Amino acid sequence: MAKSMYLLWGSGSCPCWRIMITLEEKKLQGYKQKLLSFEKEEHKSKEVLEINPRGQLPTFKHGDDIINESTGACLYLENQFKSQGNKLIPDNPAEQALMYQRMMEGLTLYEKLNLVAFYDFYAPEGERHDSALKRNKDNLVTELQLWESYLENVGRYLAGGFSLADVVVFPSLAYAFRYGLSAGRYPKLAKYYSLLKDRPSIKATWPPKWFQIEQRSESLKDI
Amino acid sequence: MAKSMYLLWGSGSCPCWRIMITLEEKKLQGYKQKLLSFEKEEHKSKEVLEINPRGQLPTFKHGDDIINESTGACLYLENQFKSQGNKLIPDNPAEQALMYQRMMEGLTLYEKLNLVAFYDFYAPEGERHDSALKRNKDNLVTELQLWESYLENVGRYLAGGFSLADVVVFPSLAYAFRYGLSAGRYPKLAKYYSLLKDRPSIKATWPPKWFQIEQRSESLKDI
Repeated sequence: MAKSMYLLWGSGSCPCWRIMITLEEKKLQGYKQKLLSFEKEEHKSKEVLEINPRGQLPTFKHGDDIINESTGACLYLENQFKSQGNKLIPDNPAEQALMYQRMMEGLTLYEKLNLVAFYDFYAPEGERHDSALKRNKDNLVTELQLWESYLENVGRYLAGGFSLADVVVFPSLAYAFRYGLSAGRYPKLAKYYSLLKDRPSIKATWPPKWFQIEQRSESLKDI
Repeated sequence: MAKSMYLLWGSGSCPCWRIMITLEEKKLQGYKQKLLSFEKEEHKSKEVLEINPRGQLPTFKHGDDIINESTGACLYLENQFKSQGNKLIPDNPAEQALMYQRMMEGLTLYEKLNLVAFYDFYAPEGERHDSALKRNKDNLVTELQLWESYLENVGRYLAGGFSLADVVVFPSLAYAFRYGLSAGRYPKLAKYYSLLKDRPSIKATWPPKWFQIEQRSESLKDI
């Protein structure tokens, strides 16, 4: 089945990483793939736009079926390959409710990280305000403290066993620590990150450009 | 089962409406509910915060399970009550891929609508720029044109039969037309809106405050 899949992706993109972790977990290795460069604007290339009119990565096909939205693709892959690889949506109602809740909240976490780490990208010169950046930072602190509290009473993962909640949330946290987030101020998040980073599906899909030391950033160190 | 459910909601909120449509479609009428007022800040009340630390509506419980994220709640309800009421996730792989794709894209549509209709809410006085509002409007036009193109080749619904894609997207379109969106410029969206607005699950959950004529707005009329 994996041979009929095609993923166009960018290194360091959390949404791309979510699909790649899911493909590993579902034992769908061997899919066709192409690494594109955001810097060279390859996500706006003809090949991408023909599959994905939004010109974004990931861009993903399974046979003729197109599912570019990363969370949608993870849900689709789990549903299509339920009995293959690891189960990523728990059957138990309480765990399932928590899984969907954290999975969707993970999109809010990602958005709030972006609004700080990439503030200058979202607000062009002439529209930037210290007050707005400060508000974004305050919102991110509140968000991260909420996730600290979520991790207070759970085990290793966010909702029972490893699930789509972890698939969606982990890349954002990896990116937060990569961008300088303090392990001291967010010890539960740091522990979660450190426990999951060596999981085979995650190691196998680690963003290649993160192996280059010069790609590190400190834009979240004061959060 | 519905008797063990509790929904705290606000009138006119698209995320709340999504859950309410899903509950109707799954024949889960008779759930406990409370209509709260955003104007009176009741979404920040103790009762809400105890269930939902984000202080947002919807706030939703099923027994002891909490699932406040609207799209997550819709997925949860469909999965827990698969064989009850209408099926909202198609089995057919092509339709299922399209369903997840449009459902998740629906969240982008909603966000882009908000960034125009509620620009003054998101950008406090002193941080507002005509250039930013114009960019938000241009992005919204592009987004709506994309949805026009999506509706070009489908039948009545977004992905096969009525599905969670429609559940997530319809409230946003209803709100867009309520806020003055031009049916002339977006004829496919207008036709979709007009076909779905009389669906029993949608009529039964129409936002009560929308029956009051003074609640209309024209903030999207030039889009």
